[in-house]
Amino acid sequence: MHAYRSHTCADLTAANAGDTVRLSGWVHRVRDHGGVLFVDLRDHYGMTQVLADSDSPAFAAMEKLRAETVIRIDGRVKLRDASLVNPKLPTGEIEVYATDLEVLGPADELPLPVFGDQDYPEETRLAYRFIDLRRESLHQNIMLRSQVIRSLRNRMWDTGFTEFQTPIITASSPEGARDFLVPSRLHPGKFYALPQAPQQFKQLIMVAGFDRYFQIAPCFRDEDPRADRSPTDFYQLDVEMSFVEQEDVFNAIQPVIQGVFEEFGNGRPVDADWPRIPYAEAMLKYGSDKPDLRNPIEMQVVSDHFRGSGFAIFAKLLEQDGTEVRAIPAPTGGSRKFADRMNAFAQREGLPGMGYIFWRKGDDGTTEAAGPIAKNIGPERTEAIRQQLGLGEGDAAFFLGGKPEQFEAVAGRARNEIGRELGLADENQFKFAWIVDFPMYEKTDEGKIDFSHNPFSMPQGGLDALSGDPLAVKGYQYDLACNGYELISGAIRNHKPEIMFKAFELAGYPASEVEKRFGGMVKAFRYGAPPHGGCAAGIDRIVMLLADEQNIREVIMFPMNQRAEDLMMGAPSEPTNEQMRELRLRALPKE
Amino acid sequence: MHAYRSHTCADLTAANAGDTVRLSGWVHRVRDHGGVLFVDLRDHYGMTQVLADSDSPAFAAMEKLRAETVIRIDGRVKLRDASLVNPKLPTGEIEVYATDLEVLGPADELPLPVFGDQDYPEETRLAYRFIDLRRESLHQNIMLRSQVIRSLRNRMWDTGFTEFQTPIITASSPEGARDFLVPSRLHPGKFYALPQAPQQFKQLIMVAGFDRYFQIAPCFRDEDPRADRSPTDFYQLDVEMSFVEQEDVFNAIQPVIQGVFEEFGNGRPVDADWPRIPYAEAMLKYGSDKPDLRNPIEMQVVSDHFRGSGFAIFAKLLEQDGTEVRAIPAPTGGSRKFADRMNAFAQREGLPGMGYIFWRKGDDGTTEAAGPIAKNIGPERTEAIRQQLGLGEGDAAFFLGGKPEQFEAVAGRARNEIGRELGLADENQFKFAWIVDFPMYEKTDEGKIDFSHNPFSMPQGGLDALSGDPLAVKGYQYDLACNGYELISGAIRNHKPEIMFKAFELAGYPASEVEKRFGGMVKAFRYGAPPHGGCAAGIDRIVMLLADEQNIREVIMFPMNQRAEDLMMGAPSEPTNEQMRELRLRALPKE
Repeated sequence: MHAYRSHTCADLTAANAGDTVRLSGWVHRVRDHGGVLFVDLRDHYGMTQVLADSDSPAFAAMEKLRAETVIRIDGRVKLRDASLVNPKLPTGEIEVYATDLEVLGPADELPLPVFGDQDYPEETRLAYRFIDLRRESLHQNIMLRSQVIRSLRNRMWDTGFTEFQTPIITASSPEGARDFLVPSRLHPGKFYALPQAPQQFKQLIMVAGFDRYFQIAPCFRDEDPRADRSPTDFYQLDVEMSFVEQEDVFNAIQPVIQGVFEEFGNGRPVDADWPRIPYAEAMLKYGSDKPDLRNPIEMQVVSDHFRGSGFAIFAKLLEQDGTEVRAIPAPTGGSRKFADRMNAFAQREGLPGMGYIFWRKGDDGTTEAAGPIAKNIGPERTEAIRQQLGLGEGDAAFFLGGKPEQFEAVAGRARNEIGRELGLADENQFKFAWIVDFPMYEKTDEGKIDFSHNPFSMPQGGLDALSGDPLAVKGYQYDLACNGYELISGAIRNHKPEIMFKAFELAGYPASEVEKRFGGMVKAFRYGAPPHGGCAAGIDRIVMLLADEQNIREVIMFPMNQRAEDLMMGAPSEPTNEQMRELRLRALPKE
Repeated sequence: MHAYRSHTCADLTAANAGDTVRLSGWVHRVRDHGGVLFVDLRDHYGMTQVLADSDSPAFAAMEKLRAETVIRIDGRVKLRDASLVNPKLPTGEIEVYATDLEVLGPADELPLPVFGDQDYPEETRLAYRFIDLRRESLHQNIMLRSQVIRSLRNRMWDTGFTEFQTPIITASSPEGARDFLVPSRLHPGKFYALPQAPQQFKQLIMVAGFDRYFQIAPCFRDEDPRADRSPTDFYQLDVEMSFVEQEDVFNAIQPVIQGVFEEFGNGRPVDADWPRIPYAEAMLKYGSDKPDLRNPIEMQVVSDHFRGSGFAIFAKLLEQDGTEVRAIPAPTGGSRKFADRMNAFAQREGLPGMGYIFWRKGDDGTTEAAGPIAKNIGPERTEAIRQQLGLGEGDAAFFLGGKPEQFEAVAGRARNEIGRELGLADENQFKFAWIVDFPMYEKTDEGKIDFSHNPFSMPQGGLDALSGDPLAVKGYQYDLACNGYELISGAIRNHKPEIMFKAFELAGYPASEVEKRFGGMVKAFRYGAPPHGGCAAGIDRIVMLLADEQNIREVIMFPMNQRAEDLMMGAPSEPTNEQMRELRLRALPKE
């Protein structure tokens, strides 16, 4: 017989009754039923009930077992009494009467238990991650993550993509975040950087003629702490294709992502209709470039109804250039109580408040509009608004006005809040949309023109478009939104050096700077570059959505804490003098 | 029609004759056949012949094309004349008469050509890697690498392993090589390290209860330059299993590795018999712990034949403790010329020479032994040697004497040289062997006891064995040898803290040092650790063997040069002052 096991802890069924077996695993729980000891023996695959009575040679050893001890037992498989069968357990029909027991790995008193559902402080969980990982839900999340990545890989290969590994110790490649640096010992004073993303490499792979690349790629960013991201690194499904337009990328990616959500979504419906929504439309309708389309609310411009109206605040406002009034319809929200709650929400968000109208059954049995705005603008305008928004008795509408870029984000959050409060969304589903036509440039707070997204994207209209108003230029730049998250970001790339230099020039970067920062890629574009484009999908986020987890550390095997420390391994730590000498570095005292 | 292509450059066959098509790709070659221009148009998938005559609207543009320009052409598919069909090309039956041509990506004068087989200096190739990668053999190698990794992955999954990613930014984990360090910005003065291997993590995964782990794992070592390895990082198929003994690991891995060699070996036979050879036996028979078993030569101990013999050098030598004389049989090597050549080889290796006997047809028609040794030891001993080695007329034997550890390595190289010179090995095959029973400890040059391999291996005999002579202790430690290379290394791990502390103590490491260096893992072993073991296979080496390449840079997409520089991206480079300030570091002047 094998030294450790003839079966796993998930294998035995009634068909094994009478067999002599050997099992190994962790002592999940010991119960003493008056002279009979029961051990729930757990391994990666499942759980088996083991028992011994005082006749068993294993009894004495079993009495001493502490939870989480690793043991081997030999024994005979017995059918359980019909009344004791556990239909929820694959091994629930049987139990194993132990005749021999060996401790393979003893366990000290546990800093956190495996059995039971108690919450433990995250710092304890991270310091003893090897115990925490034995708990069922985390164990399942980590297995899910592996299976999702496997599925993504297979789907990409099956669609004609090839996975290539790109360097991890490489050059600094500024993409907006901070690099992690790696000092070079052979070249003292010089540093490598860990890639923020394989952006330049994947484009070089296209220039090298490989056509369809993907990679499950580790990306490294030295970021300041934030709850929903790892402070050091993350994984993305990185994709690039040659000789493609935007729709080709969409058509290649949708089956992969949709397939994975269908495979691992646990039966939650996955919408197959992925609309293309221009950025400007998304901001108007949803107040977000990553709208949650489970929420049916779509905002509308209602400026005309307020222009010159008796509601002075909006009427005055609309006299200024570039202002608008937008309505957030709130079906079934037609009560003063709800309207007040939303008004309070708006105040928490830093607004003076949020105007509203709601429609209720009047004393005379007809529908009447209520709220200060309705009173101020009069019945005709109120009715026109009602009709435009398609609302009726029992519904409400909320209004925000000003320059759109100043209130769009709050409007988006109000839309979320309203949808959630009114239960308008079926949360139990996945809805996707490609957000397209992102502006290439934006005005910074200092009034400078800068890239609003990826500087490597191809501007729509090419070189010609770059001769006009930069803020009017759209890029072949797209995101995939899912349930309110940005799941994918991508672009058709700018593969023409002359357009690239012009695009950077508009953002204030002289050619010399472009050559210095992206020299490898720009050089490559001079020796036969194909049109190409691609995208990158956030794997941690996909797994979080599928596992229904809010904390990224629930879907990573060995995460850092939020201060970028590994409490289990003790990282980061002081280097030795020898190491610092070899690297020709000195640490300075804290500022 | 699609903006760039209706077909790839490998798609069109006689069945497409008459079709209007659109192709995009690189101009591989332009030929001018007196008024008719031919372009070999190349993409990732293949090559298609495009032509234009002066009637074609594309003619003028085609005349100006430089090699490696990226173009789109529209045209009509024509059957080639029977005499011009190229059966070696999938598209060899057709050509495309171009009616339109657009330059998508112009090309400057090339620093190295894609068409043709010229050798170019490696520095040029690395600086323009994106061009070098378009060359067919390198392109194929990189595709092979991807396919090998995919196959390894699928085979591991199919065998019940799960792939888990382990941290890349982590703690220093001393495993014999030098760490790459990563300064922490949030914790000034402290450093992370890139993992030399996920050794501790994979063992922690077992302690966490995951049972069967694998990973295509990047490993980072700050090594001094050497021709056949990358100076910064390499990839391994990293494997770990719980509740296993050595043979379980072998049985899990052999089908995976054998399968990959059969799949990608290009028809070269893959021996399915993987013998287990104890380390001591491998050193004796092959003079190496990674023997090339394609070579049939097995060395033997022949001390007895020389003890007290007339060959004074060996007779004297054998009076000392711990000495031996070993013979390298050389079938078909029976000529003075060959013997002299091998003697010269031995002198190049730093030995005074290598004694030999060879057997030839004597003047009287019988077999006679020739060479000074035969003369000195006399016919009886010579004949006994011949019989022991199973040699005959036309064969030779070479002899080395001394303390085995001092001549084993040279003997191994002589065995290789003899095998190669005599053509004894069928090079065109793959032969494997598990080398087992490695000694746990060795004596360093300073006479200290130190680990000879992995300090985490379980000593055979457990705690008891550690009470005797350390140099006699064998470990559950194994390598897989293939064609003279070490392809895999692994061990059953020491999962018992008390045995681990004792094992380290023998090598001179106090418990405090073990806690400090491997604290995370040692702590984990106190909370229920399963017996476990595993191995790691060198992926770069596997691909090199399959691709029949000697230089590791021929199987890596974007390799460093031997000075650990990326000439294409310009790494490493000077950090900015801002970066150094944020990291609280100062670079010291060179020593």
